[in-house]
Amino acid sequence: MIRTVAVTNAGEIVYDLPLSSLKKEEYKWYWADFQEPTEKEIQLLSKFFRFHPLAIEDCVEFTQRPKMDFYDGYFFLVLHAIHQKTLDAEEVDLFVGDQYLVSFHKNPVREISNLFLKVKKEPILQSGPLQIMYQILDKLVDDYFPPVYRLEDVLNQLEDKTEERTISSIMEEVFNIRTDLSSVRRSIIPMRDLLYRMISSTKLNGLKEKEIYLQDVYDHLLKLVEMIDANRELTADIRDSYLSISSDKMNRIMMTLTVMSSIFLPLTFIAGLYGMNFQYMPELQGRNSYFVVLAIMIVIALAMVGFFWKVGWLRYKKSKF
Amino acid sequence: MIRTVAVTNAGEIVYDLPLSSLKKEEYKWYWADFQEPTEKEIQLLSKFFRFHPLAIEDCVEFTQRPKMDFYDGYFFLVLHAIHQKTLDAEEVDLFVGDQYLVSFHKNPVREISNLFLKVKKEPILQSGPLQIMYQILDKLVDDYFPPVYRLEDVLNQLEDKTEERTISSIMEEVFNIRTDLSSVRRSIIPMRDLLYRMISSTKLNGLKEKEIYLQDVYDHLLKLVEMIDANRELTADIRDSYLSISSDKMNRIMMTLTVMSSIFLPLTFIAGLYGMNFQYMPELQGRNSYFVVLAIMIVIALAMVGFFWKVGWLRYKKSKF
Amino acid sequence: MIRTVAVTNAGEIVYDLPLSSLKKEEYKWYWADFQEPTEKEIQLLSKFFRFHPLAIEDCVEFTQRPKMDFYDGYFFLVLHAIHQKTLDAEEVDLFVGDQYLVSFHKNPVREISNLFLKVKKEPILQSGPLQIMYQILDKLVDDYFPPVYRLEDVLNQLEDKTEERTISSIMEEVFNIRTDLSSVRRSIIPMRDLLYRMISSTKLNGLKEKEIYLQDVYDHLLKLVEMIDANRELTADIRDSYLSISSDKMNRIMMTLTVMSSIFLPLTFIAGLYGMNFQYMPELQGRNSYFVVLAIMIVIALAMVGFFWKVGWLRYKKSKF
Amino acid sequence: MIRTVAVTNAGEIVYDLPLSSLKKEEYKWYWADFQEPTEKEIQLLSKFFRFHPLAIEDCVEFTQRPKMDFYDGYFFLVLHAIHQKTLDAEEVDLFVGDQYLVSFHKNPVREISNLFLKVKKEPILQSGPLQIMYQILDKLVDDYFPPVYRLEDVLNQLEDKTEERTISSIMEEVFNIRTDLSSVRRSIIPMRDLLYRMISSTKLNGLKEKEIYLQDVYDHLLKLVEMIDANRELTADIRDSYLSISSDKMNRIMMTLTVMSSIFLPLTFIAGLYGMNFQYMPELQGRNSYFVVLAIMIVIALAMVGFFWKVGWLRYKKSKF
Amino acid sequence: MIRTVAVTNAGEIVYDLPLSSLKKEEYKWYWADFQEPTEKEIQLLSKFFRFHPLAIEDCVEFTQRPKMDFYDGYFFLVLHAIHQKTLDAEEVDLFVGDQYLVSFHKNPVREISNLFLKVKKEPILQSGPLQIMYQILDKLVDDYFPPVYRLEDVLNQLEDKTEERTISSIMEEVFNIRTDLSSVRRSIIPMRDLLYRMISSTKLNGLKEKEIYLQDVYDHLLKLVEMIDANRELTADIRDSYLSISSDKMNRIMMTLTVMSSIFLPLTFIAGLYGMNFQYMPELQGRNSYFVVLAIMIVIALAMVGFFWKVGWLRYKKSKF
Ligand SMILES: [Mg+2]
Ligand SMILES: [Mg+2]
Ligand SMILES: [Mg+2]
Ligand SMILES: [Mg+2]
Ligand SMILES: [Mg+2]
Ligand SMILES: [Mg+2]
Ligand SMILES: [Mg+2]
Ligand SMILES: [Mg+2]
Ligand SMILES: [Mg+2]
Ligand SMILES: [Mg+2]
Ligand SMILES: [Mg+2]
Ligand SMILES: [Mg+2]
Ligand SMILES: [Mg+2]
Ligand SMILES: [Mg+2]
Ligand SMILES: [Mg+2]
Ligand SMILES: [Mg+2]
Ligand SMILES: [Mg+2]
Ligand SMILES: [Mg+2]
Ligand SMILES: [Mg+2]
Ligand SMILES: [Mg+2]
Ligand SMILES: [Mg+2]
Ligand SMILES: [Mg+2]
Ligand SMILES: [Mg+2]
Ligand SMILES: [Mg+2]
Ligand SMILES: [Mg+2]
Ligand SMILES: [Mg+2]
Ligand SMILES: [Mg+2]
Ligand SMILES: [Mg+2]
Ligand SMILES: [Mg+2]
Ligand SMILES: [Mg+2]
Ligand SMILES: [Mg+2]
Repeated sequence: MIRTVAVTNAGEIVYDLPLSSLKKEEYKWYWADFQEPTEKEIQLLSKFFRFHPLAIEDCVEFTQRPKMDFYDGYFFLVLHAIHQKTLDAEEVDLFVGDQYLVSFHKNPVREISNLFLKVKKEPILQSGPLQIMYQILDKLVDDYFPPVYRLEDVLNQLEDKTEERTISSIMEEVFNIRTDLSSVRRSIIPMRDLLYRMISSTKLNGLKEKEIYLQDVYDHLLKLVEMIDANRELTADIRDSYLSISSDKMNRIMMTLTVMSSIFLPLTFIAGLYGMNFQYMPELQGRNSYFVVLAIMIVIALAMVGFFWKVGWLRYKKSKF
Repeated sequence: MIRTVAVTNAGEIVYDLPLSSLKKEEYKWYWADFQEPTEKEIQLLSKFFRFHPLAIEDCVEFTQRPKMDFYDGYFFLVLHAIHQKTLDAEEVDLFVGDQYLVSFHKNPVREISNLFLKVKKEPILQSGPLQIMYQILDKLVDDYFPPVYRLEDVLNQLEDKTEERTISSIMEEVFNIRTDLSSVRRSIIPMRDLLYRMISSTKLNGLKEKEIYLQDVYDHLLKLVEMIDANRELTADIRDSYLSISSDKMNRIMMTLTVMSSIFLPLTFIAGLYGMNFQYMPELQGRNSYFVVLAIMIVIALAMVGFFWKVGWLRYKKSKF
Repeated sequence: MIRTVAVTNAGEIVYDLPLSSLKKEEYKWYWADFQEPTEKEIQLLSKFFRFHPLAIEDCVEFTQRPKMDFYDGYFFLVLHAIHQKTLDAEEVDLFVGDQYLVSFHKNPVREISNLFLKVKKEPILQSGPLQIMYQILDKLVDDYFPPVYRLEDVLNQLEDKTEERTISSIMEEVFNIRTDLSSVRRSIIPMRDLLYRMISSTKLNGLKEKEIYLQDVYDHLLKLVEMIDANRELTADIRDSYLSISSDKMNRIMMTLTVMSSIFLPLTFIAGLYGMNFQYMPELQGRNSYFVVLAIMIVIALAMVGFFWKVGWLRYKKSKF
Repeated sequence: MIRTVAVTNAGEIVYDLPLSSLKKEEYKWYWADFQEPTEKEIQLLSKFFRFHPLAIEDCVEFTQRPKMDFYDGYFFLVLHAIHQKTLDAEEVDLFVGDQYLVSFHKNPVREISNLFLKVKKEPILQSGPLQIMYQILDKLVDDYFPPVYRLEDVLNQLEDKTEERTISSIMEEVFNIRTDLSSVRRSIIPMRDLLYRMISSTKLNGLKEKEIYLQDVYDHLLKLVEMIDANRELTADIRDSYLSISSDKMNRIMMTLTVMSSIFLPLTFIAGLYGMNFQYMPELQGRNSYFVVLAIMIVIALAMVGFFWKVGWLRYKKSKF
Repeated sequence: MIRTVAVTNAGEIVYDLPLSSLKKEEYKWYWADFQEPTEKEIQLLSKFFRFHPLAIEDCVEFTQRPKMDFYDGYFFLVLHAIHQKTLDAEEVDLFVGDQYLVSFHKNPVREISNLFLKVKKEPILQSGPLQIMYQILDKLVDDYFPPVYRLEDVLNQLEDKTEERTISSIMEEVFNIRTDLSSVRRSIIPMRDLLYRMISSTKLNGLKEKEIYLQDVYDHLLKLVEMIDANRELTADIRDSYLSISSDKMNRIMMTLTVMSSIFLPLTFIAGLYGMNFQYMPELQGRNSYFVVLAIMIVIALAMVGFFWKVGWLRYKKSKF
């Protein structure tokens, strides 16, 4: 679908003009938005607009990294929108000339549609292609925050609810959050570099107070990078922390097992010994034999307990051995 | 709440003037402090002071990263105070013009209140907005040290008291300190970069001996970064160290269990064997059978002990197997 | 094998000329392709073309890193093709002069053969050595994508099929993918740096719209680096994640063992105790002795279960001890 | 304590002049050394020398990072001496003017005392404040080597004596060495950066052949950084290595336990089964029952051994399961 | 030992001249090689050649990092040869003047001896000190490859032969290779930086086609760094991989133990229960008691097997619990 809006020399806003009429002198500038374009519509990029084949290839091919290329008479921007649910990066391409802006995106992008409809209402949006470009940039970057905040929230809730979940499920969720953060980061880092380049570029001077406005978007991107890196670091810390705690807990479990086994295995052996059915076992006859053996068992048990007390396996915190 | 203080051309200090009178010619410069401002007071930023919407948005929106923006006739600073208890970053915004300083902070900041009251007493504070800006900066950065020292102390005490605590609780505390250090670091790093930019900026020349004074604050920030990084590194080392020690201790525990089990399981089996009640078991009849079996048991026990001695599991330090 | 193609001043394309005739004035430029060259053919590099000994050494010696060297009258490029199956880096060397391009590769490279045949058909390829150089570069880099996508696919499938494989075999596959990614990375990183140098070099101005075209290849290399780094990071995350989960699972296994042993070892001992055959064991006589002992056993079992319930080893998720 | 030494215009060396006489014209230059200064002596920095308050604050306050500040008529250096025993960083501050050098240190520094006494004997030391500054710098940096060599030696001995120590005590020593290396590193890194700045500074031109001499100190600092980083890396490698080896040893221990238990638990159960005292147990009567059961036991034991042989737990190196 | 070779103005090559005659006008240039010099020979560096004390100190003192210093009339190079067996760095110092080259090395260096003898035979070597310097550099760097290739080979063989070795011995070898790689890296990194500096230095213009030749050595050093980093990374990957696999294997071992114990401990207890010798145990009398108990045992065993099947401990790959 191709939508168009044009501003006449008289300052009027006209929607949905056919492409063919857009280049007329009566229009100060226009915006053509390609959303989910058909194969035929894509061909207009070269046939009608005569954009450079390399730029068109970037539109059509797989997802490009955010970047800015300068061609004769226009510049070409690749931006990323982030899908609010899937966190997928969705490419938004802009061709920005003096008198036109062509936006190209294979998926519908809510913020672009909103802007498109607002052109009529908000005078600021009528000042030209660079203003539209800035507004798209600003809105796309604003839309990066909700997913990052959501990931941060999930991570923070994770810390609170640990008592009720298995460590494995926590680890899996930490892994997923970490992967999502990395994925979003791969859009934000080149967007940040792009903004930096735009701020220092001398070819974008048409935008009034350019630097201040782009700097504001750049600030947002710096903030996003910082949030993502902090949260990624937190996932690593959580994982390392659980590993230590899990290893410590294992020690406690194994101490318990070892203490129990070391006390009862010898005793059970002695009991088994005098449970043998040999005809001639002198100890069995004595009137006090049973009590002597019981006493020996108690001595062995106490010796074991004493040993484990000494090495600290009965007082976990003081374990020295 | 908005507090004001102004210096007249005659050098007098006047507190609590209404905003409307501040722009009069009789005042050399003034300082207006917005603390916990109401919605109405916030609107004065645009209506009375006519600050740029982007700067006002930075004040009102979520916590910005420390930064400096230049606008027509004034510059705009975002600084961070660190809450001494919670370690939260609290945004302090400064608008610095030739003849005014406007400070804006949603939370009360002790150091700013102190400075505000001192303007009357200390002549140095009467020299102008840049001096106030420097003093606020200096005090905020000085206030970063106590929380960082406190975290360092907790970490050092942790090393001493390990004998009396469970490893899990130590690991949790290490994790918390590490997270706190990271959080403070996220304020200090952009503050450091901001100071570096201020030192090299040519637009702040009004401050006498500017470079030397800002350099002093910059030194403090470098020192803070170094302390935080050293302590963060220490937390990682403590964690890795415990993991090794915990894994080693587990080996010792399991050796004990394995030695005990390997000695007594075969003996108990033999005892059980001759405890069976079969009518025809020729070994049971012999006069020496019991003693033969006892001898066999002793031989097995000695063989096991010998084997474990050889592989070193009885002499932990020499364990080779 | 040496193949040649030349463009005459009249614009005609002539294939398979003998080397000796190539330098004639009637040819605007020519391309000589050395594929799997014999020892004798290699000697032509110095004897016929008089290339610098250091450049020839780079061709003949082991695999060089991608690079660009400037010699008198020509420049020398080392490029890497990546073998689609083995992922081995295969060196492709180009000598690029004003009127010739000499390509040298010890292995057949499909894309070069294709290009060689297309010279006749595609006018763009007839514009000169720099164009051929760009086309080779473009095709080699395009061919980096399939292996990287394949590694990414294997890694993604790995995440899905974990239930049906042993962790050891997953770890080995992760290790192999990681090693492959590192190996491909070692070709791509210097290729990227080479492209960056080519874009900013002032000695390659003969290529029309040079920057735009090389930038397009450079974009591809940036994208590849990003994909590889993301996937390498993913392998590390998978490994760390499995380590945590594996350690957690071990805890669950050992809890089960410890609970079972701690309950049954004492009971079995008591049973063994009253299975001893001493002639005088007063307890054995009592009419209720058996039931008393049974009751004691039940009490012990319940106490154990109670203890383990309290420390949480029976309700895994709530384990506190 | 304040010690002074001055060089007269005639080239004579005079020790222990009172401060008040130092500024006389008859002295070419002087050196005043503040060692463990009293509160009163500290006040001379501002009252007598009129140094800048920020520089004095740096002397008096906590340990500063090594740095160089330029003030009107003098420059101010913060250097670190490293205590040979405790490895603590000890601040040495130098004020260097055209005709004086003031050194300030709260602890006695052996190398400075030595230099002070040598001024009389060594003509080179009489050439002026910059020469003294260079000599102090050179000596302080030379004194960094013994502690670093000592740490390196301890680490190397650790590798040799591992057989005789517990892994826990090795890990603790590795941790301590690592912490010490980090602590020394925090002095050396800013010293290195300081030297780099001094070499490239244009304000230190009074020192003859300045660059060559400072470069020599800089070389030493580069060497120190390299040694420390190599040893820190070694500590990490030792730790990771022990973790792998410890985990492998655990496997061997647990295999032993599992093999023993898996063989004897079923056998002991069977023995226990036929040790039951039921009145009617047909198997007990048969003449060959005992031998049949013995045979079954042998079969079970062999089956277990066979299974464990097959999965490799009896031939540790070939373990496949 | 000091060896000398000189080239006369007539182009003749003269070996073994006494030092005193070398500075005569009849010699165009000379090379003096100090190999394993005596204390007396070392003194000639200052007495005869009058080299700067700092440069001589660098020769005599411990191993310096590779570097280049410029002195009046000559420059001073510190290079590293790597001992082919021990991988130790051996310092080679060069003093390079317009008309002389003095090489200084405490150990014999094969490549320097070879070059020394070749001066007579190879005309290229007669062109001057810079040429000799380049040749030494080229040969030393060529000699870095064999040890690095050898380490790479050992590492690759390690991957193949893992089945026949204990993990501990593999880990120790990995640790040793890693340490060796780090040690070689510490020579190569500053050599690389030195070459980079030489290429861009304007003071070495005497060497014909300087840049191309030094670039060739620089390429080799880049290649070496890349090989070493790749192999170091591989050692870390191998170690991490073994840790995961070892932890997974442990799980399998412990599952086996837990399953065996959990099945047989309850059964053995029941058998022990009815092996008690109480006079009054009603169950023992019943005609079917034995069979009832047997049935109960079978039910318990099946229940256990069922439970372990459900949680997946009997089908290792599907383990979910
Ligand atoms: Mg696209
Ligand atoms: Mg925005
Ligand atoms: Mg906004
Ligand atoms: Mg990433
Ligand atoms: Mg903003
Ligand atoms: Mg980070
Ligand atoms: Mg704010
Ligand atoms: Mg301060
Ligand atoms: Mg202060
Ligand atoms: Mg951080
Ligand atoms: Mg200071
Ligand atoms: Mg570090
Ligand atoms: Mg080659
Ligand atoms: Mg391409
Ligand atoms: Mg293409
Ligand atoms: Mg790599
Ligand atoms: Mg492209
Ligand atoms: Mg990475
Ligand atoms: Mg101090
Ligand atoms: Mg020195
Ligand atoms: Mg020295
Ligand atoms: Mg450090
Ligand atoms: Mg030196
Ligand atoms: Mg290193
Ligand atoms: Mg030396
Ligand atoms: Mg070479
Ligand atoms: Mg060579
Ligand atoms: Mg290294
Ligand atoms: Mg080469
Ligand atoms: Mg690497
Ligand atoms: Mg790691």
